[in-house]
Amino acid sequence: MPSEFDAATAVTPAGEGLWRAEISGAYNIGNVPNGGYLLALGTRAVGESLVHPTPLTVTGHFVRPAAAGPAEITTEVVRSGRNLATGQGRLSQAGRECMRLLATFGDLSKLRGPTRVAGDSPCLPPPEDCAAVRGPLPRGLSVSLTDSVEIRSRPGTPGWASGSPRGTAELDAWVRFTAGRPPDPMAMPLLVDALPPAVFELGYSGWVPTLELTVHVRAVPARGWLRLRSCTRFLIEGMLDEDVEVWDADGRLVAQSRQLARLTAPPEPTA
Amino acid sequence: MPSEFDAATAVTPAGEGLWRAEISGAYNIGNVPNGGYLLALGTRAVGESLVHPTPLTVTGHFVRPAAAGPAEITTEVVRSGRNLATGQGRLSQAGRECMRLLATFGDLSKLRGPTRVAGDSPCLPPPEDCAAVRGPLPRGLSVSLTDSVEIRSRPGTPGWASGSPRGTAELDAWVRFTAGRPPDPMAMPLLVDALPPAVFELGYSGWVPTLELTVHVRAVPARGWLRLRSCTRFLIEGMLDEDVEVWDADGRLVAQSRQLARLTAPPEPTA
Repeated sequence: MPSEFDAATAVTPAGEGLWRAEISGAYNIGNVPNGGYLLALGTRAVGESLVHPTPLTVTGHFVRPAAAGPAEITTEVVRSGRNLATGQGRLSQAGRECMRLLATFGDLSKLRGPTRVAGDSPCLPPPEDCAAVRGPLPRGLSVSLTDSVEIRSRPGTPGWASGSPRGTAELDAWVRFTAGRPPDPMAMPLLVDALPPAVFELGYSGWVPTLELTVHVRAVPARGWLRLRSCTRFLIEGMLDEDVEVWDADGRLVAQSRQLARLTAPPEPTA
Repeated sequence: MPSEFDAATAVTPAGEGLWRAEISGAYNIGNVPNGGYLLALGTRAVGESLVHPTPLTVTGHFVRPAAAGPAEITTEVVRSGRNLATGQGRLSQAGRECMRLLATFGDLSKLRGPTRVAGDSPCLPPPEDCAAVRGPLPRGLSVSLTDSVEIRSRPGTPGWASGSPRGTAELDAWVRFTAGRPPDPMAMPLLVDALPPAVFELGYSGWVPTLELTVHVRAVPARGWLRLRSCTRFLIEGMLDEDVEVWDADGRLVAQSRQLARLTAPPEPTA
């Protein structure tokens, strides 16, 4: 039995560079599938066309909201080399493109070179002493994502969840798949985008659609909980960056992401 | 007369979604055009096809080195909306693709929303008290880029230039076009990639080819010198991130970038 995540990112070949997929409703914010989940799905399709196993750097531009249901992904090999291969994908529903992505794959297990890491994993109490971060959001928006991905943060954080935003756009949390699937490079595009927006700690709420999300996968994660550090440093005229680091159970940095997003008025609650 | 940079990023229409360009030799490291310059050129071509004026987020994947000389750029509009438009470009020479890019354009002057900035511009002595950072590189590699872009850093930095790397992969510097062209959003893809690699301050040298570079343009820069802050936090098995912030003469953050690059053996010096 494939895990829920693997089933939700499965793609079926339907011709040269053409894949069919079923967008799951298990990673929604309100009734919109999370951008990171769509990026994971697109990355899987692009990866099917490439000879190297691991996504090293993936960028998605989100041009229309998607919805749970059938989707089509067209892929193109940009270049296939000895150590690296680059591909492109476009994810469409009913003939309307929702996301365009570029991905370069390689083999993390074959990298050789110096290692120097500045910084450390987020300092958090053990998961059992942390509090679950779950939907629904303010205004009654349901969040299926937090049923599929377990998120636990230091008690009292995020402050906005109890009406007391802390004034610093940061959130650290433990993250894992609820159903027990171990983390791997293919899951990184989803997991880096799984926390609630760090900008909510400045007292803002609303909808924070992603324009663009880039994920660098830096190492194959060990089994077990991941620790995520999320922060927004530059909110300028309603546009914001969000940087996320992912550290594995062995204390190694395994992924980094940055997205550009917009703070907008919240959608109406779904029934 | 267009500036050197505008001439070097000029594109000539040659059919539906097809542009011809001449890659300049004025932004070389050794005999290879700088990745940021190629991204600026590709961004210009994509922007010609889009109705909005400013690149907000641009990502390039670099799949083959380019060389000064003729190039062809094919562009495609992914989506054109009321506030945002997304396009794709591929830059080729002699039928071989060198770079694929995605860009979302908008209008920075029309953004409205809250602003909260964490962090400040790099603290540097005035430009006249700083030292020019120029090629040639160790091993005699010529660097035309530093003739076209003026870079000035705190005296004694970068330490590697005088044989004393400081052990922290950071470099702050003043940056402007040598020929006096004011900075603008279109120049950001070049300028974020103009400093020597921050990783050299760890004592490494060599060639640091970019796999992927993403630039977020956050505000229209004021005239005058820019201040750049560059750092590498995670060098892992020879792969590295490099983050750059760009602050304008009014002390406002105007761009951010992150790239994924590889530390490799240096090429042989060019004659």
